[in-house]
Amino acid sequence: MGPLGHGAEGLSPMEFTPTDAETLQRILRWRRDVRHFRTDPIDGQALARLRSAMDCAPSVGNSRPWRVVQVNDPALRAAVRAEFTRCNTEAGKLYSGPQLNDYIRLKLAGLDTAPVQLAVYTLTNPAEGHGLGRQTMPETLRQSTAMAIHTLWLAARAENLGLGIVSILDPRAMVRLLSVDPGWEFQAYLCLGHPEFSDDTPLLHREGWQETTAHPWEER
Amino acid sequence: MGPLGHGAEGLSPMEFTPTDAETLQRILRWRRDVRHFRTDPIDGQALARLRSAMDCAPSVGNSRPWRVVQVNDPALRAAVRAEFTRCNTEAGKLYSGPQLNDYIRLKLAGLDTAPVQLAVYTLTNPAEGHGLGRQTMPETLRQSTAMAIHTLWLAARAENLGLGIVSILDPRAMVRLLSVDPGWEFQAYLCLGHPEFSDDTPLLHREGWQETTAHPWEER
Repeated sequence: MGPLGHGAEGLSPMEFTPTDAETLQRILRWRRDVRHFRTDPIDGQALARLRSAMDCAPSVGNSRPWRVVQVNDPALRAAVRAEFTRCNTEAGKLYSGPQLNDYIRLKLAGLDTAPVQLAVYTLTNPAEGHGLGRQTMPETLRQSTAMAIHTLWLAARAENLGLGIVSILDPRAMVRLLSVDPGWEFQAYLCLGHPEFSDDTPLLHREGWQETTAHPWEER
Repeated sequence: MGPLGHGAEGLSPMEFTPTDAETLQRILRWRRDVRHFRTDPIDGQALARLRSAMDCAPSVGNSRPWRVVQVNDPALRAAVRAEFTRCNTEAGKLYSGPQLNDYIRLKLAGLDTAPVQLAVYTLTNPAEGHGLGRQTMPETLRQSTAMAIHTLWLAARAENLGLGIVSILDPRAMVRLLSVDPGWEFQAYLCLGHPEFSDDTPLLHREGWQETTAHPWEER
């Protein structure tokens, strides 16, 4: 693909066809929160394409406040896993009876096998963007990072890779464990790799935890 | 497209080709924060496809905490515009000299022309999802909504429609103005319509406000 990309024959590169829109719909539909990974590594070129996709994500005032740390050190990975286990045990106390059994049965993280693991942070006060668009709602910074994570997620799906978000972690512990710079707030821990199976029914549906309900748009 | 979608010949619908991945890259690359709209309406079927795309967005514990209000009433639209003007004037006080001139020159909202305008809220304590995954980080709810907005944004781009986020608004005023239910927090106001022109250079670049800088992933 050249620097401007190629659209269908005779169209400007910014024009999309119904087939392009259907491809996107299919990628959106088959995105999964993957927690079961094979251990084989991700091809280096595919990973580079994912990094470059993430660079296209939107951000408030073009501030690009996300910072990514790829966690490779086995000792650090073990520390993250221990932190997850601690937080997950704590979260399990919310439930009782059959719901507790359901909770315990859910596999909520692929930390034991995912070949690529990324800790994602958000800058609390980035110089870039010069504050534009975030004065009334500072949380637009974290929302920008959420969109960057979603961008990576879709790009992974389109490469037949799976991504799962781990949010059952103490954000302060994740700042301390990875010794990140001051002003970096922890946002999410991502597991990335080849999915162990094609998850045509999302895990939370399959396990009966939560079906999908759609809420119609209201009008005023 | 059937209920499971169609992949390339001979592939499972969950398998994507390099061409599919390039289509996504092109959609990501040409997504723009659009602030210049034509006034002609969006086709009803296209809007329905956008709504259904948003229904595919990920959410913590499948809680789907976003709520959307389509704002059609001219008086309400005028009230939103007045609120934007008030907040934008306030935000402009941060800048001085040439940067103030730059700020004033930026067109930061398409509120005057966008045919579809959506106020997006996040539930602070949804029943759906049963609290899963958000105990240590309650803001994962708002991050889910951010991903739903990003989903809508990409689906709009693939339909050759533009979307722009307006974040220069007081969230309390946006709760009051649209009389939403208790427990709905304002997150973003979206303008949606046909872009007035093909914005091959993003506005903040064109106007010299903020170039794109990429930050390499760190390793630990």
